Amino acid sequence: MRILVMNPNTTASMTASIRAIAEASASPGTEILATEPLWGPESIEGHFEGYLSAAAVLDRLTTIDVPFDALVMAGFGEPGREGAQEVLDGPVLDIAECAAQMAMLLGHSYGVVTTLDRAVPQIEDRLRTAGLLQRCASVRATGLGVLELEEDPEVTVKAVIATARRLIEEDRAEVICLGCGGMAGLQEKVSAALGVPVVDGVAAAVKFAEACHELGLSTSKVRSFAGPRPKTIGSWPLSTHLRDAR
Amino acid sequence: MRILVMNPNTTASMTASIRAIAEASASPGTEILATEPLWGPESIEGHFEGYLSAAAVLDRLTTIDVPFDALVMAGFGEPGREGAQEVLDGPVLDIAECAAQMAMLLGHSYGVVTTLDRAVPQIEDRLRTAGLLQRCASVRATGLGVLELEEDPEVTVKAVIATARRLIEEDRAEVICLGCGGMAGLQEKVSAALGVPVVDGVAAAVKFAEACHELGLSTSKVRSFAGPRPKTIGSWPLSTHLRDAR
Amino acid sequence: MRILVMNPNTTASMTASIRAIAEASASPGTEILATEPLWGPESIEGHFEGYLSAAAVLDRLTTIDVPFDALVMAGFGEPGREGAQEVLDGPVLDIAECAAQMAMLLGHSYGVVTTLDRAVPQIEDRLRTAGLLQRCASVRATGLGVLELEEDPEVTVKAVIATARRLIEEDRAEVICLGCGGMAGLQEKVSAALGVPVVDGVAAAVKFAEACHELGLSTSKVRSFAGPRPKTIGSWPLSTHLRDAR
Amino acid sequence: MRILVMNPNTTASMTASIRAIAEASASPGTEILATEPLWGPESIEGHFEGYLSAAAVLDRLTTIDVPFDALVMAGFGEPGREGAQEVLDGPVLDIAECAAQMAMLLGHSYGVVTTLDRAVPQIEDRLRTAGLLQRCASVRATGLGVLELEEDPEVTVKAVIATARRLIEEDRAEVICLGCGGMAGLQEKVSAALGVPVVDGVAAAVKFAEACHELGLSTSKVRSFAGPRPKTIGSWPLSTHLRDAR
Amino acid sequence: MRILVMNPNTTASMTASIRAIAEASASPGTEILATEPLWGPESIEGHFEGYLSAAAVLDRLTTIDVPFDALVMAGFGEPGREGAQEVLDGPVLDIAECAAQMAMLLGHSYGVVTTLDRAVPQIEDRLRTAGLLQRCASVRATGLGVLELEEDPEVTVKAVIATARRLIEEDRAEVICLGCGGMAGLQEKVSAALGVPVVDGVAAAVKFAEACHELGLSTSKVRSFAGPRPKTIGSWPLSTHLRDAR
Amino acid sequence: MRILVMNPNTTASMTASIRAIAEASASPGTEILATEPLWGPESIEGHFEGYLSAAAVLDRLTTIDVPFDALVMAGFGEPGREGAQEVLDGPVLDIAECAAQMAMLLGHSYGVVTTLDRAVPQIEDRLRTAGLLQRCASVRATGLGVLELEEDPEVTVKAVIATARRLIEEDRAEVICLGCGGMAGLQEKVSAALGVPVVDGVAAAVKFAEACHELGLSTSKVRSFAGPRPKTIGSWPLSTHLRDAR
Repeated sequence: MRILVMNPNTTASMTASIRAIAEASASPGTEILATEPLWGPESIEGHFEGYLSAAAVLDRLTTIDVPFDALVMAGFGEPGREGAQEVLDGPVLDIAECAAQMAMLLGHSYGVVTTLDRAVPQIEDRLRTAGLLQRCASVRATGLGVLELEEDPEVTVKAVIATARRLIEEDRAEVICLGCGGMAGLQEKVSAALGVPVVDGVAAAVKFAEACHELGLSTSKVRSFAGPRPKTIGSWPLSTHLRDAR
Repeated sequence: MRILVMNPNTTASMTASIRAIAEASASPGTEILATEPLWGPESIEGHFEGYLSAAAVLDRLTTIDVPFDALVMAGFGEPGREGAQEVLDGPVLDIAECAAQMAMLLGHSYGVVTTLDRAVPQIEDRLRTAGLLQRCASVRATGLGVLELEEDPEVTVKAVIATARRLIEEDRAEVICLGCGGMAGLQEKVSAALGVPVVDGVAAAVKFAEACHELGLSTSKVRSFAGPRPKTIGSWPLSTHLRDAR
Repeated sequence: MRILVMNPNTTASMTASIRAIAEASASPGTEILATEPLWGPESIEGHFEGYLSAAAVLDRLTTIDVPFDALVMAGFGEPGREGAQEVLDGPVLDIAECAAQMAMLLGHSYGVVTTLDRAVPQIEDRLRTAGLLQRCASVRATGLGVLELEEDPEVTVKAVIATARRLIEEDRAEVICLGCGGMAGLQEKVSAALGVPVVDGVAAAVKFAEACHELGLSTSKVRSFAGPRPKTIGSWPLSTHLRDAR
Repeated sequence: MRILVMNPNTTASMTASIRAIAEASASPGTEILATEPLWGPESIEGHFEGYLSAAAVLDRLTTIDVPFDALVMAGFGEPGREGAQEVLDGPVLDIAECAAQMAMLLGHSYGVVTTLDRAVPQIEDRLRTAGLLQRCASVRATGLGVLELEEDPEVTVKAVIATARRLIEEDRAEVICLGCGGMAGLQEKVSAALGVPVVDGVAAAVKFAEACHELGLSTSKVRSFAGPRPKTIGSWPLSTHLRDAR
Repeated sequence: MRILVMNPNTTASMTASIRAIAEASASPGTEILATEPLWGPESIEGHFEGYLSAAAVLDRLTTIDVPFDALVMAGFGEPGREGAQEVLDGPVLDIAECAAQMAMLLGHSYGVVTTLDRAVPQIEDRLRTAGLLQRCASVRATGLGVLELEEDPEVTVKAVIATARRLIEEDRAEVICLGCGGMAGLQEKVSAALGVPVVDGVAAAVKFAEACHELGLSTSKVRSFAGPRPKTIGSWPLSTHLRDAR
Repeated sequence: MRILVMNPNTTASMTASIRAIAEASASPGTEILATEPLWGPESIEGHFEGYLSAAAVLDRLTTIDVPFDALVMAGFGEPGREGAQEVLDGPVLDIAECAAQMAMLLGHSYGVVTTLDRAVPQIEDRLRTAGLLQRCASVRATGLGVLELEEDPEVTVKAVIATARRLIEEDRAEVICLGCGGMAGLQEKVSAALGVPVVDGVAAAVKFAEACHELGLSTSKVRSFAGPRPKTIGSWPLSTHLRDAR
């Protein structure tokens, strides 16, 4: 199968990290295409940027030339998954929801390590909407911004471990979810340091995409995620109307 | 004060209806500016369109020349309010949340009349995220699409009344919320027919905007809705980069 | 319009404070009448006193000579609002519910500063019944009793600020609600000290009363808050039967 | 031990019914005192009456000459229990909470049969505050008012059975709670007709009062239900100030 | 009446402790039979052991020669109660649920002191399933294993008091539940030390069993707890097939 | 990898059905071992049988000679998963939880078709404990017992389709979960008849087991699911002590 993995921000180096972990997680026979929108924020650290990225992702989807079987939305806690579910035939997996779901297979409760403190309520809301909040012990922030994660890998892994430790020791989490596409690749170090399973949402989403595909299952179209009704959408797709989109 | 009322879709006739009820609801001394995005869907009946409109609204906000004190987001159940809260200094009022809140001042439980059945879960999710779902008796659909509401006013009012009646008689709602900006103006007829208070979200939002303004209160900037961090956003604002935006 | 603001306790100086903030919050054209019951506790710091005050308020309502358009119940977390909704035609606004609702327009979560620790569960229960608890970060007590609030204003404002600070820093509240009619007037100092919106319930309730009135909306009478059925009530109204009521 | 059973309304014939079932349920060695307030509504069918009765009950408690070990509050869904808990040393049992608790020992879910439809949300709120709502399948009304229950016993039992049948067949309740002190004595007939356990709240409360007493347990005084702080309460106790109290 | 009290583990000394408190709690006229399974774990400190004990208890029930009117399941948070409800005619009382219920009659919230930290989520889940979690302030562990409780009574009572103190001071519990059949008999000391009611689940369950019996109430058989359908069960009852069962 | 799929009942023909769907769902390279306990009930249709099967499954695990990487517990809503998680190193997947989780990837809400009505609350409780109940539209029963499912395949598929149709049309489910291991293989027919995705729990669990394995993730051992503490367990493993186990 072919999975399209969508980095919601425009930072190519993050797309590369996301691609790397997606490929490392994929089964033989699964091809990973990773990309990012043609416009929009370089990182997403709030609602404003999140809503921009949601539209940018939906716009990018209109420009994908090759068929794909599933889409992984690689923004942790970022909006947009439901919109993609309407326009696509194949399943759409959100990395926050998949991380939580996988964690729930592995422990009584899970904790999420995220970037900035302001992201905490946003992630909680996404988990609440998805009906996955009950077994969330806590969401805690490292204090590092999304793009800062890539600056000093040693600082980053230390901060992630320290935050994860608080989730385990203070909030009694039994599993850790890495709450940012940019934390991809850290799960082994964090797991080794703390002795708990660590779930990367991109990896989990890739596996769940494969699972759906192998069972021949995709998004229900009977109600919430039926295709959009035919209508006029001004300047759509945006990228074909932008003078300067990449 | 000046309130900007944002129709999330591009249909000018709907902006006019929304403007009319906003003006009818406003206090003397409150000036209403009503507008719509420069691009995007002509109506919003699903998540895809909703996410597009959220970005289109945020984009439109960058092009407003006049200062305004508050923003009313006039899409019932549509996303975007949190993004506007980050970029603006003044309060942002969402008509679904304001309708629910006002209804909760008037009865033990409220019911929402919306357009299409597919909108029901979307509205429920918005109310759940906002922490306002507990007293929602039910959300029911007339089956009429957003733009169809304007086609035959008699058909529309009949459908709204019939749906509201079921909310009262079967779901025990004590207050009705009109769940679509396009139902503006129907509250008196529905209320007269059914003998219950009927809340229009645009009207409620205008009053709540005035309330915040008169008390000198606005969005908290300490965490969730702090202004976005400085960063690169490609092709932003979109409308200045679009060849053909209105 | 005319709003009756009811101090649930018999302490006239508190009625005066409540009147002051109600008047400061009211729109031009809104007349504020503030009063208190003719009997009952001088302050309310528990359920026993709360239930007494509920009846005392309902009794006082029978003795109001002038028509009024709305009632503000100015006891934070105190019972009685539903009883008033049954006997009155105009809307009844409870200051705890209005504070929470207004706060929910301004931030992702809100915290409540109250008087004594024993009031904390009572306020939580009122918010839970009202369906407003989900976005309550926490309720914390200053440790000062209701009447003690007026003793040393400097001590009071310090205690309120310290408690609010804990709500923000430890419980992540983004908005503060002043949880006692006796804290009226402190919102500016607290807001200035902590940099977050501070909502006074009396002010919020006055604005919401104006909002309902301006939209021609009042309590639904179809079920929960229909007028009481005709029946014998011994010694009612109490004040006309009391030898020594004020 | 001696249990005081308090009919919250002033109707002596209802006190008699309540006394009868309390006595029938009591253990040998348990003495039942049953009484009602000295003023207040003859029946309670709404919040207004409920709040009056809460104060009337608290007032009546001040006039009880004999010591008693526990208090049963015999209004189903009526307020006041927490106030009594503050002023008394012995435990206070609320018949709605005790009915629900006993039912939860006997089946996966329970249904409540009450009097008027307007009582339904009030009972739900009481169960929600008490943390007992999760296993409540439903609350349904016979449509008979509190005092009407005594008019035609055959009509009453038929109505109760019919309503209970709907709770079982449509709402899947496995146990029935009789939701009004005035339904006392019907449990055998209803149980025989429908083949499910039927719990009378007065009976359950009497047994729970005995249980607490026998284990030497009473209300915690450390926080919520500590005795009221010393203060001035005008015209209190009311009955000693009323010209015409019974 | 005769109550069978079932220690879920095979340790006779614990059965003795449980018997002692059951007898001390029982009314005159109530005979206590206490026993334990014929096989299974000597203590239960996790799910594995819990599931074994559930089957061992159900097996033991098939070998009880004497009739009994009610069963008390004396494992705090341990599974099995619903299985016994299906096979027995008389009521089945679970000590965790009964402790919580009794505590809820005595205070706004309750805290549970248990043995090992790993038991905490298990107890929370049991309370959640039972619909009793809302008023649980917290569950905390002493760190002492089930059989360690009996090693050094002084160490045990100190640990229980220290843990209970944290429940009261940090989690604001108003009532303490002793969360292990092996803590039987400590309630007086803990209560004396901390000034709050302390509920022993065995004692509460005995009283609730008496309550049900005296009211002629037992498990509903209409749905969840109907007797098992006739079917083949290999090697059942196990004890009659075991070579070496006690 | 090798997955052990455990039929919780002793009926070999059901093991065969379960094996068939497990094998049809498995990836190349995944070997399926399917088995059932050595004793216990031939079908599970209630709590009594469920608890017996939980112990029988745990017992059977002690007799598995070959290593395996993951365990699928193939009883829908049946207990035991947490016990297996304690004793095994590899992940343990419960078919009810996996069905719900997979369904939540595909639609806003899901409905469960189960066997007997008495199973409905049991399944709801399992989903509630697992934190997966929020998006469950409903659980409905065909009325066919577990072993009856195999009697007349045409009757069975008709009943399942009819029940699923009610879930979709009345309860607004967007995805159907087949709520019994014995319904294995029906998903295509039901899906074709109703036009919605249909999830078989065995298939979902096999895929999730593969997903965990491929990511190197297994059960957290830090708290809830740590291995059992060393202790004496009488007659354990049961099967080695039974005279007549298969």
